[in-house]
Parts: sequence; structure tokens; C-alpha cells
Amino acid sequence: MLDVFGRCQVQDDVKPVTEMGVYPYYHPVEQRLADGEVVVGGRVLVSVGSNDYLGLSADPRLKDAACRAVRLLGTGTAGSRMANGSLTLHETLEGRLAAFLGQESAMVTPTGFLANLVLSALVGPRDTVLADQLIHASLIDAVRLSRARLRRYRHNDLDRLAGLLAECDPAAGALILTEGMFSTTGTLCDLPGTAGLARRHGVRLVLDGAHDIGLIGPGGRGTAEHYGLEPAVDLHTLAFSKCFGTTGGAVAGPEQIIVYLRHQARSMVYSAALAPSSTAAALAALDIIETEPERRRRALAAAARLRADLSGLGFRTETSPTTIIPVYVGDLLLCCRLWRELFDEGVLATAMVPPAVPDGQALIRVSTTALHTETQLDRVAAAFAAAGRRLGLIP
Amino acid sequence: MLDVFGRCQVQDDVKPVTEMGVYPYYHPVEQRLADGEVVVGGRVLVSVGSNDYLGLSADPRLKDAACRAVRLLGTGTAGSRMANGSLTLHETLEGRLAAFLGQESAMVTPTGFLANLVLSALVGPRDTVLADQLIHASLIDAVRLSRARLRRYRHNDLDRLAGLLAECDPAAGALILTEGMFSTTGTLCDLPGTAGLARRHGVRLVLDGAHDIGLIGPGGRGTAEHYGLEPAVDLHTLAFSKCFGTTGGAVAGPEQIIVYLRHQARSMVYSAALAPSSTAAALAALDIIETEPERRRRALAAAARLRADLSGLGFRTETSPTTIIPVYVGDLLLCCRLWRELFDEGVLATAMVPPAVPDGQALIRVSTTALHTETQLDRVAAAFAAAGRRLGLIP
Repeated sequence: MLDVFGRCQVQDDVKPVTEMGVYPYYHPVEQRLADGEVVVGGRVLVSVGSNDYLGLSADPRLKDAACRAVRLLGTGTAGSRMANGSLTLHETLEGRLAAFLGQESAMVTPTGFLANLVLSALVGPRDTVLADQLIHASLIDAVRLSRARLRRYRHNDLDRLAGLLAECDPAAGALILTEGMFSTTGTLCDLPGTAGLARRHGVRLVLDGAHDIGLIGPGGRGTAEHYGLEPAVDLHTLAFSKCFGTTGGAVAGPEQIIVYLRHQARSMVYSAALAPSSTAAALAALDIIETEPERRRRALAAAARLRADLSGLGFRTETSPTTIIPVYVGDLLLCCRLWRELFDEGVLATAMVPPAVPDGQALIRVSTTALHTETQLDRVAAAFAAAGRRLGLIP
Repeated sequence: MLDVFGRCQVQDDVKPVTEMGVYPYYHPVEQRLADGEVVVGGRVLVSVGSNDYLGLSADPRLKDAACRAVRLLGTGTAGSRMANGSLTLHETLEGRLAAFLGQESAMVTPTGFLANLVLSALVGPRDTVLADQLIHASLIDAVRLSRARLRRYRHNDLDRLAGLLAECDPAAGALILTEGMFSTTGTLCDLPGTAGLARRHGVRLVLDGAHDIGLIGPGGRGTAEHYGLEPAVDLHTLAFSKCFGTTGGAVAGPEQIIVYLRHQARSMVYSAALAPSSTAAALAALDIIETEPERRRRALAAAARLRADLSGLGFRTETSPTTIIPVYVGDLLLCCRLWRELFDEGVLATAMVPPAVPDGQALIRVSTTALHTETQLDRVAAAFAAAGRRLGLIP
């Protein structure tokens, strides 16, 4: 028999990248400092690689809530939500999330990835899922598990979406699956157009709010609120590992659907419950999201400033109004070299290379948080200027 | 278009169960008491429904470690391990787990479910996965995602496994996938037989150690240690939500495979890292697993005693030497009624009904921990006696 382990080789790309000393992954953070900076390899770095947009993962209120929950309820529940792992704390958070998002009901999952896998229970082999090309891996895996037909349209290409909808079997089910804010490009979903098509064709619209909920919209209720289209979203998924500063996820929607998912979604039914510490931290984060809109404004203003700086230096990026700034490089090796030059300049960013992005479209992902100071942003811009010039990426 | 939400109805079974007041799921725990008892619906109950076999989720050492990590590192890492969510704490735990299991390398995942999904990167559409019929849902989903052919054999039926191995395409890959200790039945894998077949046919053996690692074997290294067959296991998956008293998971195996999975396994690459609190708690749990074998002995002795009691009362169960005691009922409704009678008697157990078990094989799952006292076990046995007689299940 063929040895399945024998075939498990890392991509050919990894070797040259490692040999050149520009391998950009799995560098462990040794320490996290009070001002949001991190210590990696003994050096203090400004991090622009975090999804902690509101800067809450180090907030004393979240820390207090997490520790209180640990003292009171322990370090784990040792059971699935369905069996004996449910806590009143989970239910409190679910009630608060549903109310916050204007949905009837919500259910908390152990991670955001598992919240998205829950969607596999909504569709079956005869159905079609119409999805933006840039959706997260966990959403693609949810569709694969459901065995529904996955048809992807170019990012925000509504003409193509309309065409795909027209081709759907009217006797079967269909679902539009997209994200509020896309992690790689930082772009928002064209929700007005997407929701219009969903309504016209009578199909449900499911929105992954992992990145936008907490950040986008005057009340932080995400891209749907930003566009005044909250009622157009039939089901929302969430991740607590971004704006909520901890781990976990949730699904929010109609009561009937949430009850169904509680019994049918395998990633819910057969997973141990979210730990008390993360549940309590998410609840404390929601308090802050609801009462401190200035954190959103600060994070977004930092991005606007840095985007202008980088674009002014000659880097190619996007114009979207979010905390994520993709700096397009193209070549994989060049991207890793830029990552390393930035690291040497004291800046920790994220290199995104295939298969996380399409071939030949490697990029440095920069993200800002509410904690970034003008001085830190100056350092980031200066690092990009120096590194970009050394590599001939900018004039 | 067909409304996909319109079809989302909970199973027909749920309604009568709810109307009879015997619905056994999602009852939230309001409080956890120092002696391992829980408060549900305002009543203090002896819990025999937890996977916290060693009683570590409430251990002061785990709580201290978790809170220290929260204070030092925050309530989340806000990034995937691959990007900027790795901590030296994760690496410390990985090194310790690999050493503990006698494997070259280990990788920590956000949950046990996601640790199992990692396996989808090992096989592809032309391969065959031979799996015990009772494997966990997350393992089945891993195979579905890989698009390998899944062939299941009756629980521990080695003749059938041998037959299936003989039918495998010698030009393609094959893998045996089973568990050290099965969650529903509490039985151990017949590892001597399974490992022998794996060796004879030259196929890799992957063992899910969610329940047995920490509990089984003189050193707590699981079913493989119990049988003196540690080198026969090519790859181990783990869950921290059982013996480790927290949340998270891991995969341990050859360095080359772990490096490959770090780059190719979607549930690893595209998931936010395990929170500092859970990582620190798992590390503290490993210290205890390595130094306090009496916890394993106490948990197993409690099960042996309770198994004898329940079997003596006339309940049908298994004889396997683990902390899980299935009490076979058969009928779904009767099983829920027994669950409710036990609840009323002050005992919180777990009802397992289809699809978690085969049709007509509903059971009450009882599990013991190192914290159970003789008095508590007396109460559990007495509750089963009273409830079982009222329902005519025992003489």
C-alpha cells in the first residue's frame, strides 16, 4: 500500500524561503507589552498583524471577567453544550448577542471556525451555495461537508452572482454566503447589491461577521448596520477572536433555525463548550463594544492614516474603509523578503501567500487597532519606506 | 426557489420529549461546587455526566495557571498560530506533549474537534480510510473533507477490518482511524489486533486519544501505553476538554508530518490560536497527569464500583475498564424518562439518543471522576435503583 505519510511534504516554496532566512510564520510571541507591542526573538516590535482591532485582548476589564469566571466555574466545562457543558453564562452571552444584532436568537460555539462549519447543516446535496470568491476557508469547508454545490463569483461581482442565481434549480434550495468584511483585502461586502439579489430571487443571505461585527457601523453592529440593511441578513456568524479579544464564535438568526442548529449542527453538538474564561471575556467585550464607539473610530482612523502613508509611498493597496490594509507585492519570495525587512525594522506584519491568496498575488497584510499611537504608526510607515526602497518596490 | 430555512425543523422526536417534560439537553449549569457537584435549575446534583475524569477543571493549580496567563498574555491572541498568534507558551506545551507521548513533535489546536479535522490533510480522493464504526463525528467529518473513501467496520471487528484491508487498492493510500477509548461505550480499542493488521498491511494507524490520554495506562499515556504498543501509533490526536480539564486539542506524531500539517491543515492554518488561559491550564494539567497517577486510579476505581452496582441492580452495561459506563435502555423516550427520573433523584447524567447512537440503542452515559466520593456514588446507585424500578427497567 502507498504510504500516506510519504506524500506529506510541505510545499516546495517553503525551502527557499527558509534558506533565505525570510520564513514569516509561526514566530512565537514571547511577551505582550501594555502598549500593544510584542516581543519576538528578544526584540520589541510594533504589531500590525493582529485582528484585535479594538485592542480588547489586553483590556483589564476582559482580564478581570476571564479570571473571575475561572475562579467561579473552572478552566473548562468538560462537556458539550448539548450534554452537560452549558452554563448560564453561555445563555447570558447568547441573549446579549441576539439583542445586539437584532436577531431572535443566538448560539455560542467553541471557535469562529466551528461557528461557520455549523452552516453545513443548512443545505444538502441538491442545493447550491453562491459564495464570494474570497470567503474564509471555514465557510468553504462548511459547504464541502454539506455536499451542496458551491458556485463562487468574483469578489463582489454582482453581475456574475445574478447570472449564477438565474442558473439555480428552482426546485432545489439556494443560499448566498458572503462576509461583512474580508480578511485579506479589508474590503466590505457590497451588501446593498447582494441583499437586493437575495430578495429578488427569494434566497436566504448568510453573512460571516467575523471581522466587521464590533468594528463597522455606528453601533458596531457590522456591515449590515453600516448600510442600514440589518433586516436583510437572515443569519450571522461571528468570531470572538477579532473585535471581542478572546476565542469562540457564535451564530445568530431566527429562533427556529438556532434551535435546529443546536440539535443538528455537528460542530456544535459534538464539540466541548466554550471555556468559562472566554465566554466571560466575550461578554465583557460586548459591554465595551456597545458603550465605547470611540474605540472603533480610533482603529479606523489609524488605518486611514496608515493607508494614506503607504499609498503615498507608492505601495499598491485598497481604498476600503476598514482596519485591514493589504500591501500587494505579487511574488511570494519578494513578499517574504519584505516581511523580513519589516521585521528587522521593528514591525511585525503578516505575509499572505498562496493558497491563502491566489497565485502571484502575495501581499503583506497590515491591520490597525484602537491602541496604535501616532508614534507607532510613524514607525510602521518609516519601516515600509526603508524596506520598500531596499527591495525596489517603491521609488 | 425552495426556502432552505423552511426545511430546518428539529427531529420529530424532540416534541413529545419536550411535552413530557423529559427533554435532557442544554440544561445550563448555574454553579459548580467545590466537591464536583453542580447546581442546575436551583438544585444541587451529583454529576456523572462530565468528561473531566481527573477532576482537574476545578483544580486550584489549573485555575492559577490560567489566571496568570490571562494577566500576562491577555484573553486571546487575536491571530492564527501561523500568522502572529503563536506564543512561546504554545511551543512549551507542544514540546511537553511530544515528550510525554514519545512522539517527535506536536501541534496545539484550538479545540479537539479541530485537531481531528486536521487529519483531512493526510488523505485524498483516491485513498481509503478504514475506521471503527463508533469513531467521533469530527473524525468522520475529517474524512468527508478529504474526500477519501470511508469504510467502517463494526466496533473492534478485526475480521472485518482485515477484509476491508484486503480490498484496498494497493496503488492508493490507506489509513486506519480509530480511538483509544470510545466515548459512548467506554470500551477500549483492540489495539493489539488493530496494530497487528496495520503492520501486516503496511498502513498507518491514527489514534484519537481524546478520552484515554491522561486516564489509561500506568503513566496516563493512553491505550497504547496500556497495551505496551506506543510505537505502533503513527499519529495521535488529543482533546484538552477531557482529562486536561480545559479546552483545546493537539496532534502528535513524526516531525515531518507535524510540519506538513502546520502548513496544510485548514483547521490549523485558518483558526485563531488557543487562548493563553487554556494553553496554560493544559500545561498545568500535564504536570499533574505526569506526577499524580492516583487520580487515574481513583477515577477508574469509582467506575468499577458503580459499574458493579448498576450491573448488580439489573442494568445492562459494558465490562470495559474505563470511566464510562453506558446504561443501555433502547427506546429513545424511555431513555429520556430515565434521564429525568435520575435528575429528580439528584443525579445529572447524559442521555445519548440517535443519531449519536444507532437507532433503538438509546443509553444513559454515566462517567466517573477522581473527585467522586463513596457517598456520592451511593446516591447515584440509589437514584438508578429507584428510577429504574419506577420505569420497570429493573426488577
